[in-house]
Amino acid sequence: MDYDLIIIGAGPAGYVAAIRAGQLGMKTALVEKKAVGGMCLNWGCIPTKVYIESAKLFDRIKSAKAFGIDGIDPAQIAFNWGTTKKRSDDIVKKLTGGVNYLLRKNGVEVIHGQAQLNGPSSVTVNNRLIEGKNILIATGSYPKNLDFQLPDGKSVEVEQLSQLDSFPEKILIYGFGGVALEFAQFFRMINREVTLVSPVKNLLPGVDTYLSSYLLRKTRGRGVQIIEEAQLTVNTDNQLFINDKPANYYLLLNCSWRRAVVPASEVELKLTADGYIQVDEHLQTSIPGVYAAGDVNGLSYLAHVASAQSLYVVNRLQGMPDNLKINQFPINIYTIPEVAQIGLTEGEIREKGIEYRIGEFPMSANGKALAEDSADGLIRVLSEKKYGEVLGVQIIASNATDLIAEAAAFMSVEATVYDVARTIHAHPTVSEVFLEADLDAADTPIHK
Amino acid sequence: MDYDLIIIGAGPAGYVAAIRAGQLGMKTALVEKKAVGGMCLNWGCIPTKVYIESAKLFDRIKSAKAFGIDGIDPAQIAFNWGTTKKRSDDIVKKLTGGVNYLLRKNGVEVIHGQAQLNGPSSVTVNNRLIEGKNILIATGSYPKNLDFQLPDGKSVEVEQLSQLDSFPEKILIYGFGGVALEFAQFFRMINREVTLVSPVKNLLPGVDTYLSSYLLRKTRGRGVQIIEEAQLTVNTDNQLFINDKPANYYLLLNCSWRRAVVPASEVELKLTADGYIQVDEHLQTSIPGVYAAGDVNGLSYLAHVASAQSLYVVNRLQGMPDNLKINQFPINIYTIPEVAQIGLTEGEIREKGIEYRIGEFPMSANGKALAEDSADGLIRVLSEKKYGEVLGVQIIASNATDLIAEAAAFMSVEATVYDVARTIHAHPTVSEVFLEADLDAADTPIHK
Repeated sequence: MDYDLIIIGAGPAGYVAAIRAGQLGMKTALVEKKAVGGMCLNWGCIPTKVYIESAKLFDRIKSAKAFGIDGIDPAQIAFNWGTTKKRSDDIVKKLTGGVNYLLRKNGVEVIHGQAQLNGPSSVTVNNRLIEGKNILIATGSYPKNLDFQLPDGKSVEVEQLSQLDSFPEKILIYGFGGVALEFAQFFRMINREVTLVSPVKNLLPGVDTYLSSYLLRKTRGRGVQIIEEAQLTVNTDNQLFINDKPANYYLLLNCSWRRAVVPASEVELKLTADGYIQVDEHLQTSIPGVYAAGDVNGLSYLAHVASAQSLYVVNRLQGMPDNLKINQFPINIYTIPEVAQIGLTEGEIREKGIEYRIGEFPMSANGKALAEDSADGLIRVLSEKKYGEVLGVQIIASNATDLIAEAAAFMSVEATVYDVARTIHAHPTVSEVFLEADLDAADTPIHK
Repeated sequence: MDYDLIIIGAGPAGYVAAIRAGQLGMKTALVEKKAVGGMCLNWGCIPTKVYIESAKLFDRIKSAKAFGIDGIDPAQIAFNWGTTKKRSDDIVKKLTGGVNYLLRKNGVEVIHGQAQLNGPSSVTVNNRLIEGKNILIATGSYPKNLDFQLPDGKSVEVEQLSQLDSFPEKILIYGFGGVALEFAQFFRMINREVTLVSPVKNLLPGVDTYLSSYLLRKTRGRGVQIIEEAQLTVNTDNQLFINDKPANYYLLLNCSWRRAVVPASEVELKLTADGYIQVDEHLQTSIPGVYAAGDVNGLSYLAHVASAQSLYVVNRLQGMPDNLKINQFPINIYTIPEVAQIGLTEGEIREKGIEYRIGEFPMSANGKALAEDSADGLIRVLSEKKYGEVLGVQIIASNATDLIAEAAAFMSVEATVYDVARTIHAHPTVSEVFLEADLDAADTPIHK
């Protein structure tokens, strides 16, 4: 055997597994066809947060006067995509440099090339056959191709955004999910005319309907046109139609729902009906010794879940007790306001027939949120009625994606609303809203 | 008896206790000589956060170009104190309005006037004698008067800032503690020449020395002159000297350490050597039935601790089990970067002779922090060596005051670094740094 573990794909599932395997003394190969760090680090999670940070500042500067800052002419300020992109590239370079350093430091051999599975313990890369005791497939996912053909330059994937020199005035976003909404708001903040066209009715699958309807309302309120359950067609003149009306756009960003990137295999690798690699509860595929973690197994599309899954696989291979809770994870959406949730949605709780209570508190009564001019939103805590165990937390707030960490902490130790209530929360902080929502569920709210 | 409970002082200790007492059906009087909401709501915690929010935006706008925002001339932008103050006033009005509404809603009688304690169950306000089964003193604290006399208009208290129409170019801050540092940075951000003069060596009592030395270095790095253990004197010409050198300033802001505001009393109320009201472990004073919560008992100067203490008193009076952990609370300082801590400092752990480990992770390796251009700082987790219980957490980060909530949650349930390690943290968030610091303590860091 050449390796203890061969990992295919160096995204947040693959590279994290590789570092961990190296730390544990496993001889590890990491095969990557494109770029170490994968979609997340190179074109997804990180660059988009850089873009959004710039757009948020741009947005806030429009109302700088109300904050007591004079001397800015809103008509003069302009968003510079080139500078933003450059800033993003620098950050990505720094982070991928760090990952490469850690891979080297932990003795991981990085092999650049396209991998093919040859058997339960063999992989071909660049016409070279390598063998490993175990194989971990972490090849991720990619947006589904468009069902229609657009002229060259009229459509683009998220991955290609950084190749553009500028953005046209009218952007059409096709697809759904958190990424589609983040981009819709991003382009709107930088003054583009944005239409979000979704082929489905529910734009945020897996997200509590209370949150998703709030977010759609806010996004529409910011001037984004959202068309649900839309049919897109292209006529013989290459013209795009939305529900038979000519689409008014200059560029389409494809944020279609994702499909698994399954590596070629000479042995049968069972797939689910939707084309994902089928795995058991230990993330083992139909081929013993071959595992699949991250988007490719279809259990989630989140980078942190991908990393958690792959760590679970590596730790377990080394016989290490690993009670990482891979089924309980936060979902974050980086919009204005941000949206975050963890645990069960209200729909799921009802479906299970659990008796529950809702504790709720608005941001508008929170001093820190008011000071930050971000009093839009609320926190909802869903708890089991009898003992008060927190079952799910939903947050709409300018910094919801930070606030969810506290909820995740409490839920990770199966805490009750009473545990939260007896924890002193710093004043003034937005986390006091979480306290009040729990006090509300425990029938002892102070500020409500 | 006129009342079940008479509360003296309507700050975060008093008004929170009054609402809670009202909710529990106690006939409650709340006596306040100045403004409902106290120092915290009217002049302290909340207004200062509004000022800081504006100053932070002002500061960030100076580097807007690097974020991809063109069309701002840094030489043209100016900080407008009038607008900032107006924004703060509006927020304060909204919040105090909310508190007054809650007091009314819960049947609390608010009496405006100065209270004097006449006996274990009687208080005089406006020459009117009122009687209550119990009394809660929540009169707070006030900065110590200056030891020296300055000409009129040359010195000011935090409380008086909002009465100023503008700020002069050179500000001298006298005192120490988080508030002094927050104001030093605030004035520096809005381009004032700032000197912070402290009569003592340790500017941040109770704060881990690692944090305080980091923060002082950063504050000096921002151009604030800090003079420790300084002697201030005034000569016969009313000139101020710092260590015998003439002070170069136009306005002195008094941020002296605070002293208790003890109400007049006809019965003996035992005080500590430092002049605080002496309380037992149930916050009862030397007079049975009379309690003291908040700054006035000298146990802490934090609004959230004041509220927690007063809730403890009220719940206990009503025979309600209350295991609120009033000795474990976060300390937040709203500087750039922010500083926050909870639990034991390293010095305290050493003093107790506990074997401990330090888990540490820098912000500079975190993608979200880089995206926000706030990669300055780190998280340190101090844990007990054998079982890994988290003993203390120290955070330096642009949003440390938010991040501390997660640490407080884990510590509130006596969690270990292993509990933190098995909790999935959302990507990309700054809370991942907390995860990595715990993984570091558990010897399994991924990104280090």
